[in-house]
Amino acid sequence: MASKHYSNLDLINLVDSFPNAATHPVSHAERVGELSILVHNTHTLGYILPSVAAVLKDTKISGTHWGFAGKVITLAGETVEERSENIRGTAESWRENGIFDILKGWRNELYTIYSPKGQEYFRLERSACALFGVVTYGVHMTAYTTSPLKIWVPRRNPAKPTYGGLLDNTVAGGISSGMSVFETLVKESGEEASFPESLIREKAKAAGHVSYFYQRMKSGGGEEGLFQPEVEYVYDLDVGNDVIPKPCDDEVQDFHLIDVEQVKAELAKGSFKPNCSLILLDFFIRHGIITPENEPDYLEIGSRLHRLLEFPTW
Amino acid sequence: MASKHYSNLDLINLVDSFPNAATHPVSHAERVGELSILVHNTHTLGYILPSVAAVLKDTKISGTHWGFAGKVITLAGETVEERSENIRGTAESWRENGIFDILKGWRNELYTIYSPKGQEYFRLERSACALFGVVTYGVHMTAYTTSPLKIWVPRRNPAKPTYGGLLDNTVAGGISSGMSVFETLVKESGEEASFPESLIREKAKAAGHVSYFYQRMKSGGGEEGLFQPEVEYVYDLDVGNDVIPKPCDDEVQDFHLIDVEQVKAELAKGSFKPNCSLILLDFFIRHGIITPENEPDYLEIGSRLHRLLEFPTW
Repeated sequence: MASKHYSNLDLINLVDSFPNAATHPVSHAERVGELSILVHNTHTLGYILPSVAAVLKDTKISGTHWGFAGKVITLAGETVEERSENIRGTAESWRENGIFDILKGWRNELYTIYSPKGQEYFRLERSACALFGVVTYGVHMTAYTTSPLKIWVPRRNPAKPTYGGLLDNTVAGGISSGMSVFETLVKESGEEASFPESLIREKAKAAGHVSYFYQRMKSGGGEEGLFQPEVEYVYDLDVGNDVIPKPCDDEVQDFHLIDVEQVKAELAKGSFKPNCSLILLDFFIRHGIITPENEPDYLEIGSRLHRLLEFPTW
Repeated sequence: MASKHYSNLDLINLVDSFPNAATHPVSHAERVGELSILVHNTHTLGYILPSVAAVLKDTKISGTHWGFAGKVITLAGETVEERSENIRGTAESWRENGIFDILKGWRNELYTIYSPKGQEYFRLERSACALFGVVTYGVHMTAYTTSPLKIWVPRRNPAKPTYGGLLDNTVAGGISSGMSVFETLVKESGEEASFPESLIREKAKAAGHVSYFYQRMKSGGGEEGLFQPEVEYVYDLDVGNDVIPKPCDDEVQDFHLIDVEQVKAELAKGSFKPNCSLILLDFFIRHGIITPENEPDYLEIGSRLHRLLEFPTW
């Protein structure tokens, strides 16, 4: 069987899969029209599938914790703590009753959801975020050596329930409530690649962000079609030849130092966890490997890697 | 008099000044509703101010060259050549009759306007593009030295009619019809900074693009409020200590090698030509100078520097 060949734009389309209001105003309006929306004042915080909204209305506990006005849903509570407690009650009752498959991945890890101007609005169990379609945040770092450029690429533990066995970014992890971006990077660099803290503090370089609006596919586990607008803070780390990443927790099976042509070939084969391929495309654009001359979709790719999300962000 | 202090987000707001459909759907729809649109099939190629549309309808030559259906305007012609000839006729008659101030900057330089999939649709005199609100393209390169990082910053000739005396990017120029991105960079690097061709071909590194939707301000000359959606292809050049840019044509007065803190201070004072400040913000983000820790508007800035334009692009 001939394997599929993904163009760089194909890789973007897999991950930035929700219609964009700028270029596809009609499909965007139609799609949003089918959904319920979680709002705070005039601001939309997330999109909710009709199937999830129906369950939310039917959940006993929801009566006092949620407001419903047609497709507009509000979370009750005067404070961050009250709102977080209310949504926790709903999510836990769903988990206990086995309502949504995605909650089988319960992490006991809270993410923060923001209202405008970066105000903390509520905190929510990580695995439940896609049910409410709210923005989540992560850090991704590419560790590399130069002359010639090679990239440290880990393979995910095949036993992992999500994207097991696929290739990943050198370091990647979600940002939990109360953690700063850089402290998350330091922590994940130790846990996933055994990089010493001092190395990250001295040499890791912030290099922008990648953002996209992902609608979950089957391969990610859990319900299909859930909304996952995401922001990944991007870092580069020139590790030189003396530092070698090695797995520390059970997330990663092993690391390989592979050259640019091999990375490109693996991207085209779809070997990377989908959102990780976007971090590598951004790396290749910033490092002059993907250029206006060799990539026909250069502008679309570069813009869609930095999607301006329609929700408040951090 | 205390001088104004611009935040980095202020600098973005000055240049990416047209409402964004993603985050401001209502103001975007209201603004577009006031305008005429230049279309090809179902695709909008540009926005036209009511005052310009009124003149277009009144221009004698327009009868056979243009179609009007309410606010929807089409350019007649079966081929790129016919369409280019038709729009040239209109623009030249406006110029001859002194209708629009912006045409006083007539350059005798053609820009290409694209329909979807990067198909050439027509070519138009550079100074007339903003009257039709179509996307234009340029190259911008930042030349720098390392340890410590310093940037070669030119001051524009004070005699220039547009943004005279302001600071600029090391090399910057528009992409004319028939020129590739990289060949434009080579040509402008010679003309504006006297950089030898071999240096650019060996050392200039593509580093992405910056795109924004600018609505012209008085300081740019010509009519206020004209639409200028733009794409700038971005290059970096580490010139080392032996290469020194020097003015070649009359665009630039002189070059100064200034450190990051000075560049930041000049940005905050509004000393740079407005769109050039965005190229420097992108440079600072990519090089880890602006970080999530020191810039509260990091995500909004990073996304708006790569605006996905609502028009077909190259």
